[in-house]
Amino acid sequence: MTIDFRTALEKRRSIYSISKESPISDDKIIEIVNHSVKYTPSAFNSQSARVVILFGEEHNKLWDITMEALRKIVSAENFPQTESKINSFKAGYGSVLFFEDESVIKGLQAQFSSYKDNFPIWSQQSSGMLQFNVWTSLELEGLGASLQHYNPLIDDDVREQWKIPAHWRLVAQLPFGKPTEAAGDKNFIPVEDRVKVFR
Amino acid sequence: MTIDFRTALEKRRSIYSISKESPISDDKIIEIVNHSVKYTPSAFNSQSARVVILFGEEHNKLWDITMEALRKIVSAENFPQTESKINSFKAGYGSVLFFEDESVIKGLQAQFSSYKDNFPIWSQQSSGMLQFNVWTSLELEGLGASLQHYNPLIDDDVREQWKIPAHWRLVAQLPFGKPTEAAGDKNFIPVEDRVKVFR
Repeated sequence: MTIDFRTALEKRRSIYSISKESPISDDKIIEIVNHSVKYTPSAFNSQSARVVILFGEEHNKLWDITMEALRKIVSAENFPQTESKINSFKAGYGSVLFFEDESVIKGLQAQFSSYKDNFPIWSQQSSGMLQFNVWTSLELEGLGASLQHYNPLIDDDVREQWKIPAHWRLVAQLPFGKPTEAAGDKNFIPVEDRVKVFR
Repeated sequence: MTIDFRTALEKRRSIYSISKESPISDDKIIEIVNHSVKYTPSAFNSQSARVVILFGEEHNKLWDITMEALRKIVSAENFPQTESKINSFKAGYGSVLFFEDESVIKGLQAQFSSYKDNFPIWSQQSSGMLQFNVWTSLELEGLGASLQHYNPLIDDDVREQWKIPAHWRLVAQLPFGKPTEAAGDKNFIPVEDRVKVFR
């Protein structure tokens, strides 16, 4: 059964309980990420988004890096809770890392100086669109995922580990895997309090 | 025929040539916007997005406001080009205005001070997701739309015209209408230059 765009929006949820299995092949995951990267719009079609996909041991390394970075700043008393959280992400099958290429943004700022202050903002908005599209596309294939933000804490270690160009700025991390628990209930503010219509 | 999520991503384009017709009813447009507002995620489920939908004369007013604001800052020599651009948006059927509620963001900053600097960034990312979802949902119904950014130039006039709360910050404008011309070709950077895989 084909699921339409609107139903896809409804089905996407944060899935925190994931395992080291995938209902689809690694090549299919890569193809899905590539597709979202290609078709997500960006200011002036600048295509500033960059992505790293980590599978297996490479995925484990990301969460080991995150764990060690947190160990340095979280108190011993609070660390067990942190450890358990990071292990829940490490328990997944892979991770997608979202970056924005600062050299592209600086290029736009130099070329179109009257929009100078806007390009970093539009870059964040475009990255959000991409994060959502990858997240939703993966979940439609039976994977579970959630969006995490351990940047800038892990930026230097990530850059060093995978030889990421210095001008790629980490924006978000999406650990994914086969869901082992469904998402809980979600609360919604009445939409009437959020949308005004004038006609 | 049901169009799936991925095909929907491919079909969404910037449509600049639009008319004062709509293939769907105003109520259907409102329902579509409400749906995206409800299901687009936000940091900590804060639901900080706010939206204004303008139809008919209210839509015309938005672009009149924008025209007059630009007339004050664009040289007489360059104004004909600006005028023609704004008139192309005014030629549409309606506009969706995207806001973020600053009071929600400040509330999060007060409650979770260690993420203080991140909430405004996550708000931009979430707004981007919503802009994309509304844009794509409307185009799937046969409307054409493009994302515009005349904020902060028009913020005060918009706030006054529609009695918008002072803590709603304008982020983007999406004029829409029946497409009168198809989108042109789009250039793509090779995805291999944008995505790295480690496995």
